[in-house]
Amino acid sequence: MKALEDLVALLSRLPGIGKKSASRIAFHLLKADESFARTLAERISRLRESVRFCSVCGAYTESDPCPVCSSPARDRSILCVVEQPQDVLTIEAGREYLGLYHVLGGLIAPLDGVGPENLHLDALERRVRTGGIREIIIATNPTVEGDTTALYVKKILAGTGAEVTRLATGIPVGGDLEYADRLTLARSFRGRVRL
Amino acid sequence: MKALEDLVALLSRLPGIGKKSASRIAFHLLKADESFARTLAERISRLRESVRFCSVCGAYTESDPCPVCSSPARDRSILCVVEQPQDVLTIEAGREYLGLYHVLGGLIAPLDGVGPENLHLDALERRVRTGGIREIIIATNPTVEGDTTALYVKKILAGTGAEVTRLATGIPVGGDLEYADRLTLARSFRGRVRL
Repeated sequence: MKALEDLVALLSRLPGIGKKSASRIAFHLLKADESFARTLAERISRLRESVRFCSVCGAYTESDPCPVCSSPARDRSILCVVEQPQDVLTIEAGREYLGLYHVLGGLIAPLDGVGPENLHLDALERRVRTGGIREIIIATNPTVEGDTTALYVKKILAGTGAEVTRLATGIPVGGDLEYADRLTLARSFRGRVRL
Repeated sequence: MKALEDLVALLSRLPGIGKKSASRIAFHLLKADESFARTLAERISRLRESVRFCSVCGAYTESDPCPVCSSPARDRSILCVVEQPQDVLTIEAGREYLGLYHVLGGLIAPLDGVGPENLHLDALERRVRTGGIREIIIATNPTVEGDTTALYVKKILAGTGAEVTRLATGIPVGGDLEYADRLTLARSFRGRVRL
């Protein structure tokens, strides 16, 4: 049946969904209440229509500027620099950070052909040079690309007077020394804090 | 973001998809090529429009009667009785069986309030009594409900002259005695075959 096979083929391209899971989902859509499949189809189409990028920080948003950028409760003197829009949602879910964001839209990765010119770095520099920002927290992942990008951001913001910091790397809370990899362990030594 | 949260809530209701996987899928739909989300939405809506039940055997089909029922290559003297439409696809994928099908649409399960009157048993009896069928292979799962239903089918077809058989139960090919449960082992003894 073409309609079924076409759907299974497409579902298998979703992250974490193999051929078996895709079939189970397709059969579920066939068996479940018809309104379920209809609503799912509608919400998938609606997603791309209603979710855009904030013109200020680049986060996903339904209104522009996004709720964070337009909130009077946020600390406008701190900027958290992240790789991608969903990182903003991850950090917001933590309810720890109360400043603003700046989404780079990627990381410097010469092997993948991504250079600084492909990231939203001009906009970042402009935001910082406009003034009023005293700290930039770089929250890119602790990977080679994340570290390279962090150093690059620090370089272009030199002389703006704003302090550039980076999220701490180390053993996760509840983690175990035994299971920490060599690099994480090394970083947790270098980043040790006074008690 | 409501559009995102609504979609994640709906995706989490799919089989095998938890909250985390649902979020990953939703983000993938946001990040991927816009045509991907559009095509997925279209195919989900199309599925229920194009896939119906065969009016003869009850299998999923895009044309009525289904390709199996209308194929001149199939053996019309054998009928395989299955619980649900997707069982037909499972058996067809095996490329072993070459007869026709009959989908019951469920199994007798008094505890769930499913009695014989809720299954497509009248249609089955009619098909068999019309004549030309020499064997009915009951392929319901080897569970309490599957066994009960199989015995019931055997009872209502008594006197039609057709032979009623049941799929063999036993240790799966490539399986191990050590890992076979007690019931499977007992059944494989009772169903032993002469070499």
